[in-house]
Amino acid sequence: MTPSVQFPTCDSWYSHYISYGETDAMGVVYHAEYLHLFERSRSQLIRESGMSYSETEKRGIMLPVREAQCRYRVPIRYDEKIHIHVGIVKWGRASVDFVYEIWNEDKTILHSTGKTNHACVNLDGKPIPVPHWLKELF
Amino acid sequence: MTPSVQFPTCDSWYSHYISYGETDAMGVVYHAEYLHLFERSRSQLIRESGMSYSETEKRGIMLPVREAQCRYRVPIRYDEKIHIHVGIVKWGRASVDFVYEIWNEDKTILHSTGKTNHACVNLDGKPIPVPHWLKELF
Amino acid sequence: MTPSVQFPTCDSWYSHYISYGETDAMGVVYHAEYLHLFERSRSQLIRESGMSYSETEKRGIMLPVREAQCRYRVPIRYDEKIHIHVGIVKWGRASVDFVYEIWNEDKTILHSTGKTNHACVNLDGKPIPVPHWLKELF
Amino acid sequence: MTPSVQFPTCDSWYSHYISYGETDAMGVVYHAEYLHLFERSRSQLIRESGMSYSETEKRGIMLPVREAQCRYRVPIRYDEKIHIHVGIVKWGRASVDFVYEIWNEDKTILHSTGKTNHACVNLDGKPIPVPHWLKELF
Repeated sequence: MTPSVQFPTCDSWYSHYISYGETDAMGVVYHAEYLHLFERSRSQLIRESGMSYSETEKRGIMLPVREAQCRYRVPIRYDEKIHIHVGIVKWGRASVDFVYEIWNEDKTILHSTGKTNHACVNLDGKPIPVPHWLKELF
Repeated sequence: MTPSVQFPTCDSWYSHYISYGETDAMGVVYHAEYLHLFERSRSQLIRESGMSYSETEKRGIMLPVREAQCRYRVPIRYDEKIHIHVGIVKWGRASVDFVYEIWNEDKTILHSTGKTNHACVNLDGKPIPVPHWLKELF
Repeated sequence: MTPSVQFPTCDSWYSHYISYGETDAMGVVYHAEYLHLFERSRSQLIRESGMSYSETEKRGIMLPVREAQCRYRVPIRYDEKIHIHVGIVKWGRASVDFVYEIWNEDKTILHSTGKTNHACVNLDGKPIPVPHWLKELF
Repeated sequence: MTPSVQFPTCDSWYSHYISYGETDAMGVVYHAEYLHLFERSRSQLIRESGMSYSETEKRGIMLPVREAQCRYRVPIRYDEKIHIHVGIVKWGRASVDFVYEIWNEDKTILHSTGKTNHACVNLDGKPIPVPHWLKELF
């Protein structure tokens, strides 16, 4: 429906069924849950690179969220199957940006778009340059 | 490791990766999240029967949780893959009981056991006998 | 510390202790929880106006989130007391914008800033002009 | 309404407004959220003893949940004010049991009852006897 022309090529699709615990009294997915869905898709993208996020932590790197943004276009209901498209849109010197789109089961309805900005920090929380081995995974 | 001898035969296995959003400051899955995991496995069991839970609602039946119980044996950590074993253990006249076991990736560690009891109610919340078509699905 | 010069005068302060269930394995409040905190402060602001959000729903008005944004500056830890400053920054013809600041116990550290944009819709989800009685509450 | 005759005397009342984020598509508080409410009341009970839970952690003691149980009697809806009654019901050699009741605003409706059993462990997760200073707080 809505073309997402510039979606980055370093990407992944994460599929998910909506549970009751994700909905609210309006009968739709509660807006904070979208950030959980973004996280799940992001972890899968990292896992597919051959290195899990927990392994990057063992190497001394964490990527805490510094900013998150989400646009809610079409509500998502209980038991619907959705697909979350995630991609890395930009590497900064000490940061990385992910973008997200949430699509319905047959990918004809764009439910939501989002973006997160992550700092690259060491285990003490100090910002550090993104290591080469991390960028090269993607 | 721990044999689960009497696990019901009307069952399903649900696989899941632990996200950051499910963990707490002790570094393990927060105890309330287990009830979400039980719900996900329960919905899958119903979905595999050929009828989604949202379809049972369209037929006028809801199965709200009346009691939940969970035993935490071995903590689960971020990014671990787990398997939730769910089964229907008993049909009452107007209720149904599910049991759960959460196992680690290679099914050698039993992380948790649980049980939920559900009332069978109509859309006004009134208890009603479990309809035959529902029992026959399983 | 950071002055928030232009914070709107139609505002409220919501105080809150961080629970374990809000933290994650990094030992800090999970980023999606900030949107829950924003919601709690927003509901209190509406409640203080003399009309609860559930009463606005009874009058046929809902304010679903259309966009949310959050900037994470300083992590918040378990058991810390925080204060959420919420204000209405703009009424559109059929929308309303809230802004948020999360401060530490003695209001010397600004943990986070945020913004949400809400559509004004009727109970069928159709956008409608913001009714006068709603604006006049604030 | 329902008398709770044997409620322990080492107790506390925690008051709380239900947010949208705690409800589900049935229009009521999602069942896993009750465990969050129990935790909030438990932390308040500990805080009122003069020592926060985070301070007990600094002294090397953690109280992870080993078992949780909740009975759902009357659903709780959005924006309702509730009171959670929490008490310590039993000290074991290396464990402690809390009980809970959730009441409506004027304490005439008992929404829920619950119980949690906690191990007393050191920071490595090893079970240890409950220290005297901890028991004497209550």
